[in-house]
Amino acid sequence: MINYEELFSDNIKSMKRSVIRELLKLTQKDGIISFAGGLPSAESFPVSELKEITNEVYEKYGEKALQYGSTEGLPMLLSELIKLMKDSEKITLKEENISITIASQQGLDLVGKIFLNPSDICIVESPTYVGAISAFNSYRGNMVSVELDDEGIKTDILDSTIQKLKRENKKPKFIYVIPDFHNPAGVTMSLKRRKELVEIASKEKIMIVEDSPYRMIRYRGNNIPSILSLDKENLVIALFTFSKIFAPGFRLGWAVGPKEIIDKFIVAKQATDLCTSTFNQYIAALFLNKGLLKKTVERTIKIYKEKNELMLENLEKYMPKNKGVKWTKPDGGLFLWVSLPEKYDSDKMFQKAIEKNVAYVVGSAFYANGEKKNSFRVNFSYPSKDEIVEGVKRLAKVIDEFVK
Amino acid sequence: MINYEELFSDNIKSMKRSVIRELLKLTQKDGIISFAGGLPSAESFPVSELKEITNEVYEKYGEKALQYGSTEGLPMLLSELIKLMKDSEKITLKEENISITIASQQGLDLVGKIFLNPSDICIVESPTYVGAISAFNSYRGNMVSVELDDEGIKTDILDSTIQKLKRENKKPKFIYVIPDFHNPAGVTMSLKRRKELVEIASKEKIMIVEDSPYRMIRYRGNNIPSILSLDKENLVIALFTFSKIFAPGFRLGWAVGPKEIIDKFIVAKQATDLCTSTFNQYIAALFLNKGLLKKTVERTIKIYKEKNELMLENLEKYMPKNKGVKWTKPDGGLFLWVSLPEKYDSDKMFQKAIEKNVAYVVGSAFYANGEKKNSFRVNFSYPSKDEIVEGVKRLAKVIDEFVK
Repeated sequence: MINYEELFSDNIKSMKRSVIRELLKLTQKDGIISFAGGLPSAESFPVSELKEITNEVYEKYGEKALQYGSTEGLPMLLSELIKLMKDSEKITLKEENISITIASQQGLDLVGKIFLNPSDICIVESPTYVGAISAFNSYRGNMVSVELDDEGIKTDILDSTIQKLKRENKKPKFIYVIPDFHNPAGVTMSLKRRKELVEIASKEKIMIVEDSPYRMIRYRGNNIPSILSLDKENLVIALFTFSKIFAPGFRLGWAVGPKEIIDKFIVAKQATDLCTSTFNQYIAALFLNKGLLKKTVERTIKIYKEKNELMLENLEKYMPKNKGVKWTKPDGGLFLWVSLPEKYDSDKMFQKAIEKNVAYVVGSAFYANGEKKNSFRVNFSYPSKDEIVEGVKRLAKVIDEFVK
Repeated sequence: MINYEELFSDNIKSMKRSVIRELLKLTQKDGIISFAGGLPSAESFPVSELKEITNEVYEKYGEKALQYGSTEGLPMLLSELIKLMKDSEKITLKEENISITIASQQGLDLVGKIFLNPSDICIVESPTYVGAISAFNSYRGNMVSVELDDEGIKTDILDSTIQKLKRENKKPKFIYVIPDFHNPAGVTMSLKRRKELVEIASKEKIMIVEDSPYRMIRYRGNNIPSILSLDKENLVIALFTFSKIFAPGFRLGWAVGPKEIIDKFIVAKQATDLCTSTFNQYIAALFLNKGLLKKTVERTIKIYKEKNELMLENLEKYMPKNKGVKWTKPDGGLFLWVSLPEKYDSDKMFQKAIEKNVAYVVGSAFYANGEKKNSFRVNFSYPSKDEIVEGVKRLAKVIDEFVK
């Protein structure tokens, strides 16, 4: 018999199945209310508009839409994205600054591929997005965690971490942040911190990777300028996706950055998948061209705002008092982050939650270096309103029994 | 200013833009007849059937089709593929033996990711598919070339190459072959060679990667059993794609292999792109379910057979005689391979071809170790019949002037 283990690469040996995807299987059982997924609400999908647009793609572009396309992306979609970025981020881009990707996850993978040799350092927030941990881990990058608070990554700790690394003759390749409606933490980086982050990166000559999947889904307060728009020295790669503002089933996103970096994205992507689905890109291009994004985002915001408020209300109402349980109050996005007192382990509580027919994602999944266990992620975009009310009640009961 | 070069990984530094994709840009000029692309003929696309099916996807599956899916692939598509593989390859698979991929190129990328550490050896044919060279190169694999002839990879040389490596304490991770209607060589591996290949791999405990994008596009002769179906020891990973039998614009393919390997595919794919487009998978599943693949393949074969015969006829008629020019006579697929006498360099002839308004892909692109330069690849699926006749005339003239 062949010994497969002997043949596997060091990279794949270091990789694990996504904790979340494995947990999700547990949460499929009947009667469970799951706050574990990260799915957009299906109500937000513009099904009938998309059907019409797709027919138009067949009629107008037929064979072209079924053929191979360039790695860079469909020119029509690129020019729509240039307009979108001008409108929403007030930045002026050329085609050479954009690469179409298989949603944000491919953006993260390409960032890993382009920058990370095994053991190369990158800085991530603590906690951070679990998919980024998988992507950077798949290149055996060394993720150094810097904690965040309600204003986002702590820039003083970021700076001291970089200085400490410098004394060891080490330099991070990039700093990875999710500034808007952080997944999992639900917090948004303040303008002050954004400016400090850009300043530090600029002084130390380190790239910033700005992951912005939820940025357009703001239901309270005003937009804070993106890090991309604050950067004047071509230090930022920003990752965007259609998954949360349109539909994840098309697997479409885009990366924005300096042309030297986007050029490497293209080279790396060529070897990875040749090009993104031409067909899906035509659908997205028409969707943007017809101004349907704005309408869809507005509808999505309306749905999520109601769910977010309902969840916050019920957390306030049912969560045990005086036991040190806290949660973030996000102004957008899909998630909030519940923290128990430091000595309690949300991984251990998970089994009890499942017994009570409610599920979340264990906090440990979001720490690159396993630094904490007392928090967990709760999604409010996917469950129905009834499920939110009943699920919070169950969760409150689980916590009340678990936290003494 | 930031110095990007300092930040790039060794992998990306070793990667180049695809020669073919760069050449293709040169061949866009007006009046040029290009045999350079590898595109399927747009006439073969079942546009109206697909339009109908897509509407059905919206009506029947709507929101589901727009949502995230599992990394493994859409269960409905997996079960259609199990049926297809039973019908066409006479093999019995379970879901755990299949992973849906972003067409074959992602299959190649995942093979690289799973098996190759920098400097790890894999064996490739000489010549081999340029996209495989990019994929394996992106992990800095060490590709050892073994030449092929009209019967496919020379198994005696394969064996002696492995023995030689063994004496140096080296062992290849896998042997990569394109047995049916080879790209670029146009040849098909004989049954005898397939059996010898399996025997060698089995004796030496090396995986075989069987790349089968053109297998269903046979227009003469009988099918030869796939290497996958000959293997009794779970040594083979076979890569299939919808690109040549359906439409490349959806970016869909599938990998078949032992469950231990497919499991690693899934883990690696999770970190790469989470999942393949749910929407596109529904379209493919319905397409298969309605029995439309057979009809489309039949139509494709009819179109390609005519073009192939026309090109062979005209090569016979116009190519200079007694100058040692040869070409392969493929029984399927999209490509044939023209060889000049060994001392002539098809890269050098390329400029002259462009001047005469005809294009091909230079042979050097298909050699992992730059071993030869006297051949070049000609595509006959994409150009029209008129273009084939006129293009071959031009090509014959270029060769007649170039080869003394």
